[in-house]
Amino acid sequence: MNNLTIALDVMGGDKGPLVTIPAAIMAVERLPTLSLILCGNQDIIQEQLARHKALNHPQLTILHTTQSVSMCEKPSVAIRSKKDSSLRKAIDLVDSGEAMACVSAGNTGALFGTAHFVLKTLPGVERPALISALPTKDNSQHVFMLDLGANVFCDANILYQFGLMGAVMAEQVDGIPKPRIALLNMGEEDIKGSDHIKLAAAQLSQNPDINYVGFVEGNDIFNNKADVIVCDGFVGNVALKTCEGVARLVYEKVREVFEKNVIAKILGRFLAPTLKKLFKSLNPDQYNGASLIGLRGIVVKSHGNANSKAFFTAIMEAVKEVERQVPQKISDKLEQGLIQRP
Amino acid sequence: MNNLTIALDVMGGDKGPLVTIPAAIMAVERLPTLSLILCGNQDIIQEQLARHKALNHPQLTILHTTQSVSMCEKPSVAIRSKKDSSLRKAIDLVDSGEAMACVSAGNTGALFGTAHFVLKTLPGVERPALISALPTKDNSQHVFMLDLGANVFCDANILYQFGLMGAVMAEQVDGIPKPRIALLNMGEEDIKGSDHIKLAAAQLSQNPDINYVGFVEGNDIFNNKADVIVCDGFVGNVALKTCEGVARLVYEKVREVFEKNVIAKILGRFLAPTLKKLFKSLNPDQYNGASLIGLRGIVVKSHGNANSKAFFTAIMEAVKEVERQVPQKISDKLEQGLIQRP
Repeated sequence: MNNLTIALDVMGGDKGPLVTIPAAIMAVERLPTLSLILCGNQDIIQEQLARHKALNHPQLTILHTTQSVSMCEKPSVAIRSKKDSSLRKAIDLVDSGEAMACVSAGNTGALFGTAHFVLKTLPGVERPALISALPTKDNSQHVFMLDLGANVFCDANILYQFGLMGAVMAEQVDGIPKPRIALLNMGEEDIKGSDHIKLAAAQLSQNPDINYVGFVEGNDIFNNKADVIVCDGFVGNVALKTCEGVARLVYEKVREVFEKNVIAKILGRFLAPTLKKLFKSLNPDQYNGASLIGLRGIVVKSHGNANSKAFFTAIMEAVKEVERQVPQKISDKLEQGLIQRP
Repeated sequence: MNNLTIALDVMGGDKGPLVTIPAAIMAVERLPTLSLILCGNQDIIQEQLARHKALNHPQLTILHTTQSVSMCEKPSVAIRSKKDSSLRKAIDLVDSGEAMACVSAGNTGALFGTAHFVLKTLPGVERPALISALPTKDNSQHVFMLDLGANVFCDANILYQFGLMGAVMAEQVDGIPKPRIALLNMGEEDIKGSDHIKLAAAQLSQNPDINYVGFVEGNDIFNNKADVIVCDGFVGNVALKTCEGVARLVYEKVREVFEKNVIAKILGRFLAPTLKKLFKSLNPDQYNGASLIGLRGIVVKSHGNANSKAFFTAIMEAVKEVERQVPQKISDKLEQGLIQRP
């Protein structure tokens, strides 16, 4: 693998450097060809590095920043007045080419807004989308879903483009040769859903380069009926959060069962490791590292409450996208797509 | 309780009379003051009644119909050309006042379209909504959510009205004095979400008769943060179906754990009843009987694949709404709401 450089927003997320620094150290120790530019308050960063005995690590550089973006800051405010924040600087490094990707656990709206503003979309791309992998009923398979919240509403052409971009992710990141693309809808029958979804469906079916398989409903997301599921950002965000909510609810209820009495507790002890592993595999959290695709640069968003291991996963996701040159492949696919369309 | 009459679409749903007739018999045996008008093919109905030794039951009448609406029939086609279907006739009986409510497990789109066309909305109501109860983390509480699929997109005023109608359901059906009303959104912060949702939020907060508690995200649906959650039909439908999909996925995975080996099987045996009960309580299916509210008549929709017990639950839901005079209370609430608004 070639040398590659990734910028980290060290200060973002619930625990900032307490999580991002250990994750950074894990990453550079895993990959000798990886360099990380740590954007944030240099005193705090150095303190954390020292704590983990990684001060002056040859693969870690610090870019000092003086501002921070709070978790509820309006994106427009962040863009206008937080130009020296760790979030902004990490994105600037991607823009200048000094970094090939950036990773942040910070304010989602500010990250998306700033990334879109600074990096701009690839030629022909109308809107970037937030994409992530979700578990399915088959342990070895997962499904990509987009848009998970970068946009509120998306018209037919935007959904169509999401289909193309999602196909690239599945091909490049998962190595799936002809990924099945589906649209999330209210019903499987072609008569249901809004006009813009039906129009997007028509556009996707007409593209011979796309393996469009039809509509899926919410209860089919995990049934391995598609490799990529496309929807607008509002619906995707609600679906994802609902998924997390139900998984957590069920986990709590199952735990309660095992707390009921002494016998249940003993039984629970035997089963605990397996059950815990099961729930971990189902919790979308473990797929930490959602990507904002369609921009002229790679931006990976970590959950704000991710722990070090999860943030490390997000860094590895960024590495994969750099290696597979995802933005370039998206450009190519879109160009093909535009040529195909009548 | 006073005498009341409910019309049933006997032929609708995956198993038609095989499910609806036993459910009807259970219902009239539970409630001596309940009469049911069984709409459908009289030969088939009589055969089923005979099989269950309920031919000539004093509380059961048959209204013979000659047509049926298929599961993928377009609503407009059903309305225009299936005027003698069991689905249509059941709704007609509510329209004429011969029945106080109707229950159907049939084609959802056709049911909504026909009900809206025949019964019309209550004065001032812009759009009817599909509402149902969902489980929460607190065993004794559940949450109402609307719209679950009667509409695709809803503007601010429609969402506002859904808030009012949902409040009536929670007050009347659950007996909650000042139900907490929330809007489903992409984030808790006021800055997020689309304009029409923010506008609906403003309208709800300005109504002193409504206990509006703010936005909730998908992962909070089950956290008992609200008694009624409002969203447009597309999002609601996806959220509900996603919930069902995840619950089923987790249930399957937990079952797999118990199949792993002999010890797990034995352990599973002890825990099976409790776990089964748990999953049943979490599966939205058990809350069979979603209501289409906002019309000048009570219409309850059962899942197409409901079994007899679930269809019986739907009939009982209809009984409750008749007893609590839900349409009248919605009219009153809306009138108040219109007077309050600036």
